[in-house]
Amino acid sequence: MSYLTKVREQNPLIHNITNIVVTNFTANGLLALGVSPFMADAHEEVADVAKMSAAVILNIGTLNEHVIRSMILAGKSANAHGVPVVLDPVGAGATAYRTEITHKLIGEMQITALRGNVAEVAHVAGEQWSIKGVDAGAGEGDVVALAQKAARKLGCIVIITGKEDVITDGEVTFIASNGHPILTKVTGTGCLLSSVVGAFLAVAGQSTLEASAEAISFYGVAAEIAAESTAQQGPGSFQIEFLNQLALVTPEIFLEKSRLQKL
Amino acid sequence: MSYLTKVREQNPLIHNITNIVVTNFTANGLLALGVSPFMADAHEEVADVAKMSAAVILNIGTLNEHVIRSMILAGKSANAHGVPVVLDPVGAGATAYRTEITHKLIGEMQITALRGNVAEVAHVAGEQWSIKGVDAGAGEGDVVALAQKAARKLGCIVIITGKEDVITDGEVTFIASNGHPILTKVTGTGCLLSSVVGAFLAVAGQSTLEASAEAISFYGVAAEIAAESTAQQGPGSFQIEFLNQLALVTPEIFLEKSRLQKL
Amino acid sequence: MSYLTKVREQNPLIHNITNIVVTNFTANGLLALGVSPFMADAHEEVADVAKMSAAVILNIGTLNEHVIRSMILAGKSANAHGVPVVLDPVGAGATAYRTEITHKLIGEMQITALRGNVAEVAHVAGEQWSIKGVDAGAGEGDVVALAQKAARKLGCIVIITGKEDVITDGEVTFIASNGHPILTKVTGTGCLLSSVVGAFLAVAGQSTLEASAEAISFYGVAAEIAAESTAQQGPGSFQIEFLNQLALVTPEIFLEKSRLQKL
Repeated sequence: MSYLTKVREQNPLIHNITNIVVTNFTANGLLALGVSPFMADAHEEVADVAKMSAAVILNIGTLNEHVIRSMILAGKSANAHGVPVVLDPVGAGATAYRTEITHKLIGEMQITALRGNVAEVAHVAGEQWSIKGVDAGAGEGDVVALAQKAARKLGCIVIITGKEDVITDGEVTFIASNGHPILTKVTGTGCLLSSVVGAFLAVAGQSTLEASAEAISFYGVAAEIAAESTAQQGPGSFQIEFLNQLALVTPEIFLEKSRLQKL
Repeated sequence: MSYLTKVREQNPLIHNITNIVVTNFTANGLLALGVSPFMADAHEEVADVAKMSAAVILNIGTLNEHVIRSMILAGKSANAHGVPVVLDPVGAGATAYRTEITHKLIGEMQITALRGNVAEVAHVAGEQWSIKGVDAGAGEGDVVALAQKAARKLGCIVIITGKEDVITDGEVTFIASNGHPILTKVTGTGCLLSSVVGAFLAVAGQSTLEASAEAISFYGVAAEIAAESTAQQGPGSFQIEFLNQLALVTPEIFLEKSRLQKL
Repeated sequence: MSYLTKVREQNPLIHNITNIVVTNFTANGLLALGVSPFMADAHEEVADVAKMSAAVILNIGTLNEHVIRSMILAGKSANAHGVPVVLDPVGAGATAYRTEITHKLIGEMQITALRGNVAEVAHVAGEQWSIKGVDAGAGEGDVVALAQKAARKLGCIVIITGKEDVITDGEVTFIASNGHPILTKVTGTGCLLSSVVGAFLAVAGQSTLEASAEAISFYGVAAEIAAESTAQQGPGSFQIEFLNQLALVTPEIFLEKSRLQKL
């Protein structure tokens, strides 16, 4: 696998319709990685932008009627032109509204990959999951089973991130175990990860599952290195060093540090 | 007082309806402090989010019709469920519209705490205040009198921040004299402070005034330490180190550095 | 020329109607420079805010019907009160919609300065320009000719930024050759630059071209110094150090490092 190299060589255009908290961090993270972010949600242009892009990311972190319509227009255009779509169902299950909108989006378009924490994915897939200790169980057997079930139900790649990350298409499953808890102290690290998955899908060809797994593992490696070099400094310094590492981690460093296994 | 410890132990959910300039900084500041930010302004979910939160912060920095309605729905829900509400009247007085909307919000809900600079609070309370040298006079006798008058008039805690900060319920008054002028060179430091007051109110029980005073003093201590360790480096470095210090300042450091007096 | 000194002395109020990706970075950059940013797009107040401001910046990075109307109201108010207007046509040409809206804005108001890359300016001016290698050609003869033609056609100062920057009113032309490629790895550096041009125009009196040229050159000097002192660290560190340098670059440092020539 060397999707990281392809991402940097091809510099794909990534269309993000995302929440108002993370626009800047998402754009800077993608630029650091070596890809071109495009943020646009005007109804008049989202179909055009999705069509010309190499991936579309839909993130429901701050919804309203306008942006839901933007997402549907962009998603349908992406489907029509063979552009992969990543859905990040931020807060699905936290309010009934978010669960409902997520189902609406999935009903209107074909998603390529769904990325969320275990509670979000469970709500999207309509499966039972205790909201307690949301991230604690990730990587354990039942999270894997949930991810696989969701992937088969939704017909897409499902990525559940947590202490360990599960990436599956319902048949083949990867477990990624890089990353660092301080990621949870910086807003938008999950959102940016979904966009990074989109960047790797953009260069994946048919190998969408392998590229998704590499995206997750790469992100975890960058976070680990950043956390090590800013230990004791706090989440402000980590945030900046993490942006640095998205630019600095080479394929060689990635291969050396990556802990990614196929189940 | 040890509200800081309670904040970090209880990790309260803080609902912010805030302006588009400061969403990211506010979320990162709250995460650094140890609480859980939730940004949501969709009419369909704001009442639900306010109900499940431990405090609601309303910030009028960038208004429009949609978000005003969101604020009213969230504020009424908070009132109905005993959730404290902090109002940050950014720019009240700068335009007639902002003053009008602030009055509208106060007419529709009960505010727990109002935080602004002296000109903003004067406009909200309908008191005369020269716009010249807005922050210069904070901490002086007339600012204290204004804060106390506003608190009695509005029936809430009033916090006027400036060179010195006044925290009062109209009866008991605290003066906090930590902080650093470089705070004014980073956008959203006032906005984040209002959200931090909300986080302290979330764990305050009946001691809302004491918790508000501690919030203000804690924030000033974190700023002082960050300013010292980034002296001569500039506002970019200060911003990052300030986020670090929101995570790193312990109750012991706080007690040692805090300059908070009851009048 | 010493517009930098005037900017810091006069601390002008700069009204920005900008995209949701760069609000925070723009505000922090302007604060670092020593001016007062004001972000407002409510229809009820934009005319008031534009009137009281020393410059208005309109940036089309993330459009919708609401904000287009805000821009027209603000632009007309600025024109009526002698306040300079800077237009940043982000992505003009990338979608038909953006080109159309840019033309609409120009039709509704008098722009003082237009700042974009060569492809954006070509689309705004209705001139042919190959979209390939957008920034590569800046500073070459044909870019100068394009800028001059656009300036005469639109009746405003035209600034094309790229490897070299062209600043012209159609008669007199400056070439600025400071700056650093890492600027393209941080989102919003072009957007902030347009706001910085506005800050310099705010103190320029009749010398709008000279002030614009100094703004561009100053920005490039700050970027160069920041890039030097964060070499090998990555775009996260550069972003923070660049904010620092917007505060730290003195008129003396600027004069020493500036490479600005009149053609």
